Amino acid sequence: MKIGLECIPCFVRQAYEAVRFVTDDQKSRERIVKQVLFRMANESFDKTPPSVGGDIHRIVRCLSGERDPYLEIKKDSNELAMRLMPSFKAHIRSSPDPFETALRLAIAGNVIDSAQGDRISEQVIQDAVSQSLDQSISKDIINELREQIGKATHILYLGDNAGEIVFDRLLIEELDGCHITFAVRGAPILNDALIDDARMAGLDTLVEVVDNGSDVPGTILEECSDDFRRSFMDTDLVIAKGQGNYETLGEEQKKIFFLLQAKCPVIARDIGCEQGDMAIVKKGC
Amino acid sequence: MKIGLECIPCFVRQAYEAVRFVTDDQKSRERIVKQVLFRMANESFDKTPPSVGGDIHRIVRCLSGERDPYLEIKKDSNELAMRLMPSFKAHIRSSPDPFETALRLAIAGNVIDSAQGDRISEQVIQDAVSQSLDQSISKDIINELREQIGKATHILYLGDNAGEIVFDRLLIEELDGCHITFAVRGAPILNDALIDDARMAGLDTLVEVVDNGSDVPGTILEECSDDFRRSFMDTDLVIAKGQGNYETLGEEQKKIFFLLQAKCPVIARDIGCEQGDMAIVKKGC
Repeated sequence: MKIGLECIPCFVRQAYEAVRFVTDDQKSRERIVKQVLFRMANESFDKTPPSVGGDIHRIVRCLSGERDPYLEIKKDSNELAMRLMPSFKAHIRSSPDPFETALRLAIAGNVIDSAQGDRISEQVIQDAVSQSLDQSISKDIINELREQIGKATHILYLGDNAGEIVFDRLLIEELDGCHITFAVRGAPILNDALIDDARMAGLDTLVEVVDNGSDVPGTILEECSDDFRRSFMDTDLVIAKGQGNYETLGEEQKKIFFLLQAKCPVIARDIGCEQGDMAIVKKGC
Repeated sequence: MKIGLECIPCFVRQAYEAVRFVTDDQKSRERIVKQVLFRMANESFDKTPPSVGGDIHRIVRCLSGERDPYLEIKKDSNELAMRLMPSFKAHIRSSPDPFETALRLAIAGNVIDSAQGDRISEQVIQDAVSQSLDQSISKDIINELREQIGKATHILYLGDNAGEIVFDRLLIEELDGCHITFAVRGAPILNDALIDDARMAGLDTLVEVVDNGSDVPGTILEECSDDFRRSFMDTDLVIAKGQGNYETLGEEQKKIFFLLQAKCPVIARDIGCEQGDMAIVKKGC
């Protein structure tokens, strides 16, 4: 999925927000934002949004010398989500359809996204959970995912953000008996989850955790490691979280279920839903 | 008042919105937005927001060949405001303090601002009027303005946007007996009022109407015509509408009352009010 013209102001906003994390010096902030503007002026509009986002945040990291600007935010998100986990787990256990409830919670967790703005609060998470539990989602697609999971010999689960992966863990705990590989990004980008975040969420004690070898906020296969690409090619089912994975893998010839909140109008239009909706999108089935 | 870093995403959004008015061709839109990004990457952060805004919209007009992209919007705003005028005039006439009511309406009219986004609706105007009539504004500053108007031998009234100038007319009608010059911009910029808009609002039948000779969405004196600069220097009281005039004249050694809605956080911070507030700011008194 290519970037739209309306992505441009959003990218510049992201750059502005990112520089506030990396330096307090106004002149340095200006220098970085100007470099981002210069890059954007020379960017190809045939790229996907995560590809352009990767370029922008690489400039912010490179010029500031901050390897992982969102490290503290990621830690806070993980801790907040871990603190909320027991109550969500109890909710799943007591619900008539634990798989569907866990699935809806995993989608709700996608609200934890630094590309969209400020730090996440408990209230924002609780609101997203309520929305996701109440929102009308086709029973057919939920049952199809349930069926495909039952048939799969191996599932590749592509995570998205720190904090969110605690919600992914809740879903993965409901997939008992499945052979699952959980993949995170290969290097810092926004608040996207890395291996350390997967460990904080305890995912490494449940399933195999790998990184994809790339610092893009999505999954551009050509930029991923050989090992990750092989895992992607060999798996019979992919569950992919978040907008970035949808934007980069939406046209792959592969059985993929995308679980995401459609946070921006460009994505919502592409999916055919309302902005802000919790969505399951299947491709290649 | 210099631009802040947070103005940058806002300028890029403005450019994105402006190109949608000037061409339907996606490639042309990309070309213009990229040229704006390139310009922004090389822009001085010592400039005022209207100076940078002027640069951006000059690029949009120049590359698209559209001399006045907001012409239709300006016409619609004037017509809408003229249609609403009789009821507002009746409200002023029946109020215990017609001057204060007209003043509050003139401030409310500043909501009609294409720099802030989409076309204006009747509901947005009615909401702004209700807000402005109800909002707490210091009686002292209102009475000081009333007193200064009473004492002035000449008032230079700097307009801002099309549509809004119909609300300015309502205030000017309450200043019967004053010698007033009403100034508009010298060439198309956003939805800022030009001579034609002043005529549509009937201002030319009430007071002298001049243009300032500049295409900047504010009043940068060095860029204005000699005639306008002389009028500014010679007048004993300036009433200046909108953010652009505040941003460009806030540091002039002149008796100026700024009437505006503080639409962005940068302005609100500078004034010391909440974003969205209707404000009267006096300088040089």
